[in-house]
Amino acid sequence: MSEYTQIFKGTAFSSKSSQEVQILKDYLFCINADGMIAKTVAPDHTDYQKLLHTYQGKENFHHLADGQYFLPGFVDLHVHAPQWAQAGTALDIPLYDWLNTYTFPIEAKFSDLQFAQEVYEDLVSTLLANGTTTSLYFATVHKEASLLLAKICAEKGQRGLVGKVVMDDPEQNPAFYRDADTQTALADTEEFILAVKALAKSTKQGVYPVVTPRFIPSCTNGALQGLGELAAKYDTHIQSHCSESDWEHGYVQQRFKKNDAFALHDFGLLGDKAVMAHCNFLNDEDANLFAETGTAIGHCPISNAYFANSVIPIAQFHSKGVDIGLGSDVSGGFSPSLFDNVRQAVMSSRMLEDGVDATLPAEKRGVPNARITINEAFYLATAGGGESLSLPIGRLQENFTWDVQIIDTKLSSAKLPIFNDHEDLSDIFQKIMYLVRPENIREVWVQGSKVHERAK
Amino acid sequence: MSEYTQIFKGTAFSSKSSQEVQILKDYLFCINADGMIAKTVAPDHTDYQKLLHTYQGKENFHHLADGQYFLPGFVDLHVHAPQWAQAGTALDIPLYDWLNTYTFPIEAKFSDLQFAQEVYEDLVSTLLANGTTTSLYFATVHKEASLLLAKICAEKGQRGLVGKVVMDDPEQNPAFYRDADTQTALADTEEFILAVKALAKSTKQGVYPVVTPRFIPSCTNGALQGLGELAAKYDTHIQSHCSESDWEHGYVQQRFKKNDAFALHDFGLLGDKAVMAHCNFLNDEDANLFAETGTAIGHCPISNAYFANSVIPIAQFHSKGVDIGLGSDVSGGFSPSLFDNVRQAVMSSRMLEDGVDATLPAEKRGVPNARITINEAFYLATAGGGESLSLPIGRLQENFTWDVQIIDTKLSSAKLPIFNDHEDLSDIFQKIMYLVRPENIREVWVQGSKVHERAK
Ligand SMILES: [Zn+2]
Ligand SMILES: [Zn+2]
Repeated sequence: MSEYTQIFKGTAFSSKSSQEVQILKDYLFCINADGMIAKTVAPDHTDYQKLLHTYQGKENFHHLADGQYFLPGFVDLHVHAPQWAQAGTALDIPLYDWLNTYTFPIEAKFSDLQFAQEVYEDLVSTLLANGTTTSLYFATVHKEASLLLAKICAEKGQRGLVGKVVMDDPEQNPAFYRDADTQTALADTEEFILAVKALAKSTKQGVYPVVTPRFIPSCTNGALQGLGELAAKYDTHIQSHCSESDWEHGYVQQRFKKNDAFALHDFGLLGDKAVMAHCNFLNDEDANLFAETGTAIGHCPISNAYFANSVIPIAQFHSKGVDIGLGSDVSGGFSPSLFDNVRQAVMSSRMLEDGVDATLPAEKRGVPNARITINEAFYLATAGGGESLSLPIGRLQENFTWDVQIIDTKLSSAKLPIFNDHEDLSDIFQKIMYLVRPENIREVWVQGSKVHERAK
Repeated sequence: MSEYTQIFKGTAFSSKSSQEVQILKDYLFCINADGMIAKTVAPDHTDYQKLLHTYQGKENFHHLADGQYFLPGFVDLHVHAPQWAQAGTALDIPLYDWLNTYTFPIEAKFSDLQFAQEVYEDLVSTLLANGTTTSLYFATVHKEASLLLAKICAEKGQRGLVGKVVMDDPEQNPAFYRDADTQTALADTEEFILAVKALAKSTKQGVYPVVTPRFIPSCTNGALQGLGELAAKYDTHIQSHCSESDWEHGYVQQRFKKNDAFALHDFGLLGDKAVMAHCNFLNDEDANLFAETGTAIGHCPISNAYFANSVIPIAQFHSKGVDIGLGSDVSGGFSPSLFDNVRQAVMSSRMLEDGVDATLPAEKRGVPNARITINEAFYLATAGGGESLSLPIGRLQENFTWDVQIIDTKLSSAKLPIFNDHEDLSDIFQKIMYLVRPENIREVWVQGSKVHERAK
């Protein structure tokens, strides 16, 4: 009975299915030396009292205070790390201007490692403070600064999946910000992969290199082909943008006479470890291809309101068996919080179902059965993110990592509106999902280690 | 030069027009004994140095620290105060069930004054902590508990406009929660008006009684008629819901063979001091009637995503000259924060412009020119709210009240992503609007008095 490194006692919420949240009331979570959940023990289990007897009062026994709950750490499938420096700005201007007058100049500044360090340290700390224990990052074209981001994740204890961005087409990218040429782009990517794999050996929670063509319009065929080969050679994760907006979707159709999904597939860029951001304009065939290849969608509901010209039909793609998780898309999305994106995922799905134009008759306004519930949005931010990355994360169950947020609903400066001592736990879960602020997140743990804590 | 009660020095943001935000860099704000802004003084004004000389170092001289900014306090045009107890819950179920199994039972509990006190004190404190200095409240049918809400606003220093809700039709409302009969509803309303007017005499920031038919479907013609007469007799504010959803809009058309707006007008329920929540289904004639009568729209973007079956065309109604402000609609909207509603107002307008259904061609998907900017959404939360209520609030200019939020962008636990000491102030404004959390709101002042402060 003393084989566990740590025991945590408290009530937790974790997805049972995409529709159903399991309430683990007063459970014991037994963590091993690898930071994995070795065992979950319900109060009516025969071992419960024995475990309490063995561990209670010891330093490695942690129990939640009244009003506190465990949630799985969130998995953010789409973060442009350098864009943190401009989060919240310029969202009123068109995408083209946003990229060229704000985004590319900011990203170009990450050749400066000191600037990169300042921004990336602040971002990783901020994401942890918002409950995000795993992030899939686009860095910049710069190999060194991208590696620095992976190192900062490793040091701060976040599970970071990091891509050096490839954008090599001189026709499509500004001279001040692009890869020198295709060969350099591929060579830098390979060096980056090897460096991150070396770093991973000493990183308990894992850091992972990610093959990262920015999106098809910014890459030459040679780069896309070479990146697919590198992903296969090193068995890495892959990320890009896919069928995000009318413009981007149309551009790929023109260039390849096929949809984004099939074009990416031709280059070996789909697969079980691939995550494609947005995907609003997938048609049924594209979605089937995603399901067959195990390719996941990184749904970015806040960003989509600004730049995706539509709402992605999540319920429909989920029913086809496509893996889907949530992305903040900092800074196309302004918020570093997946709580905010969970809320927006629900709202956007309601707006897709009901439609938006009040001058149309109700039956012609929206798309029936498009809504998702708060349970499903929670699933996207946790278990769905884990499935998308093919990692054992996002659920509080055996053989998953101990990645958790400890939520305090009774914090005096940010008390949730709970006025009944016997309030139903599923109502409490909903209040948490809709009303939690970063200050309610008192502690964050990744792979069994505490990586964030708020002063009492 | 010593006629001012207090001087505040710092950089402020305030709406110049619905499109333009004025940046008042390093201004002095001179406050008089009534809590009004007697004078604003720019650094290049001849009085600036004289005022500094007279007041600097004195106890009534307040200056902002580096990284801090003044914003006008927010004006929330639609809050169902009792529903705070259920905020965030049950948003996945249909409106009818939401009302009957959650909302009406909760509201019925406010016959218990002790419960009412607990919830209302928590709500008013929470709204102040979120920067809301003025709220227009629906209380419940209970005269005593509604008066208690007004008293709590008075005590806590919030400018509260409070309505005892009228819902007298026995056909439309549950037996456990409605007015006893039409005569009682009107008599209780009149007593309530007189009691709040008496309370107002000793309340510096103002409390106001509001004539409040819940919405047409819940009221008899007699009640609607009587309420219009009471509003005229006592020159009170008026609030209700108008053309919110397909169901409600259709119900009124069936009952009166006209749209909600005209039906309300017939009962004397429109006017310069009237605010109608939602209004998604106003047609052009309805909107013109609003503009002519000075009736305002309380736009509730978060709530509308759940219950309004559409996005209200704010840009279009604004261009017709209708007064518009923002409402949280707690708890049809889950968030007590107008920052959250500002963000959603922008996002929803983008989704109206672009449309939502990706299977439609772009040109048939949305409503052109529907987007509003972050500046316009800020206007709605501040100056627009003030105009809607016909009160001198929501702007930091002479002869307006000193209702402000002090925002700290450099708070260590919730630093905004500002990495440049000379960052453009309009970018800082946008980062504030998109990224501020309640913990960034360090102080809140209403009518010259500090009503909320975070411990250092
Ligand atoms: Zn992106
Ligand atoms: Zn309402």
